[in-house]
Amino acid sequence: MDKPTLYIGNKNYSSWSFRPWMALTGAGVDFEEVLIPFDFPGGNPDIKALSPTGRVPFLRHGALKISESLAIIEYAAELYPQAGLLPGDRADRALARSVSMEMLSSFQTLRSACPMNIRRAKAKIALPDGMEADINRIETIWRDLLQKSGGPFLFGGFGGADAMFAPVVNRFDIYDLVSRNDTLAYMETMKAHPAWRKWEEAARAEPWIVEEDEV
Amino acid sequence: MDKPTLYIGNKNYSSWSFRPWMALTGAGVDFEEVLIPFDFPGGNPDIKALSPTGRVPFLRHGALKISESLAIIEYAAELYPQAGLLPGDRADRALARSVSMEMLSSFQTLRSACPMNIRRAKAKIALPDGMEADINRIETIWRDLLQKSGGPFLFGGFGGADAMFAPVVNRFDIYDLVSRNDTLAYMETMKAHPAWRKWEEAARAEPWIVEEDEV
Ligand SMILES: N[C@@H](CCC(=O)N[C@@H](CS)C(=O)NCC(=O)O)C(=O)O
Ligand SMILES: N[C@@H](CCC(=O)N[C@@H](CS)C(=O)NCC(=O)O)C(=O)O
Repeated sequence: MDKPTLYIGNKNYSSWSFRPWMALTGAGVDFEEVLIPFDFPGGNPDIKALSPTGRVPFLRHGALKISESLAIIEYAAELYPQAGLLPGDRADRALARSVSMEMLSSFQTLRSACPMNIRRAKAKIALPDGMEADINRIETIWRDLLQKSGGPFLFGGFGGADAMFAPVVNRFDIYDLVSRNDTLAYMETMKAHPAWRKWEEAARAEPWIVEEDEV
Repeated sequence: MDKPTLYIGNKNYSSWSFRPWMALTGAGVDFEEVLIPFDFPGGNPDIKALSPTGRVPFLRHGALKISESLAIIEYAAELYPQAGLLPGDRADRALARSVSMEMLSSFQTLRSACPMNIRRAKAKIALPDGMEADINRIETIWRDLLQKSGGPFLFGGFGGADAMFAPVVNRFDIYDLVSRNDTLAYMETMKAHPAWRKWEEAARAEPWIVEEDEV
């Protein structure tokens, strides 16, 4: 079968696209990439036409189309078991899935008030109720896992769970939301990863501005 | 290691608890169960104290605590590979994860306007904007998978993806939201499953009323 193709949105703004892109790139998976910019009011008709859910990201591999950022990462982990996308230990693997799914299903306040925006300069904003709870819970997840694994990534080496939190690293950074040393050290580790740098460089070069994500 | 213990909320109302409970029960997994009722204004302090996320469900197995309904199902699928919680075919497994994660992360309108309520009598309610899109998307997911597998469950035999949609079957039923024959047939299949019947019987016998979920 041909190599898989990952369909993504704008690199500057598409937080859900960033996750599997960083996971696959960080794991050395050989994939094609198609970027469909969010450049139509009401949404890009190409995304709605091509994607089973009407959203990005999705992965096409032969006749198969897989939606959902984390389902794409699980599929890549099956195709490339040596890439380290999931921890080798069963209990750690369960924890990796648990925190990845918590990211997928939770932290609505942080996600809606603080859009990912790779090229935004660091500056604080007024924070709505509920933000502190989201931030605290994420810092607790990171701290517990980093203490247990010894770092520098959540389960030791870079993996899918780190990729699931990549957009949170950007949000914590650009809106200046955190100050714990262990949190800041983990964020520096993520931002120094070659896959992060490659995504960031491409995001900075994009021409598109999405007004509603500029807060 | 001892058998795992699944911590759940009220069977009548706790949609996220129903999912792994039905998956594990339907797969014949031997587990203990602890029900922590939602019976305090502002939430039950036992849930907040015992659960890593402050929510139910979670699974305790030895020293390991796994939060998130779908992470519990993935863990059970690893412990009991013969139980059929995930499809045996890799492409189907990717689709099962994709639709399960779409359930986990989406359908906010349906989830908030139409709470699961096992013992509620069937009656229509006024529907907010966005409900039709949620219903249509779920019916499309079910129809495509049932056509491909031949049914009676989404991937042929009962599995984790069916369990992830179990609370939606209840919602479609009690608020009278759907009328397609294939949808109704799948709902009957689910409601006839022995694990569904066991959960339903226990839900009907519960004494607790949660006012905000009675709509
Ligand atoms: N739960 C999905 C979320 C996907 C999602 O919301 N994608 C956004 C872009 S980051 C999108 O496609 N939005 C366009 C739309 O909803 O029309 C995942 O994990 O992949
Ligand atoms: N994404 C979680 C959702 C868990 C969830 O929201 N559980 C609800 C009960 S159905 C809960 O514990 N609510 C109590 C609270 O939030 O305080 C999962 O899949 O397990």
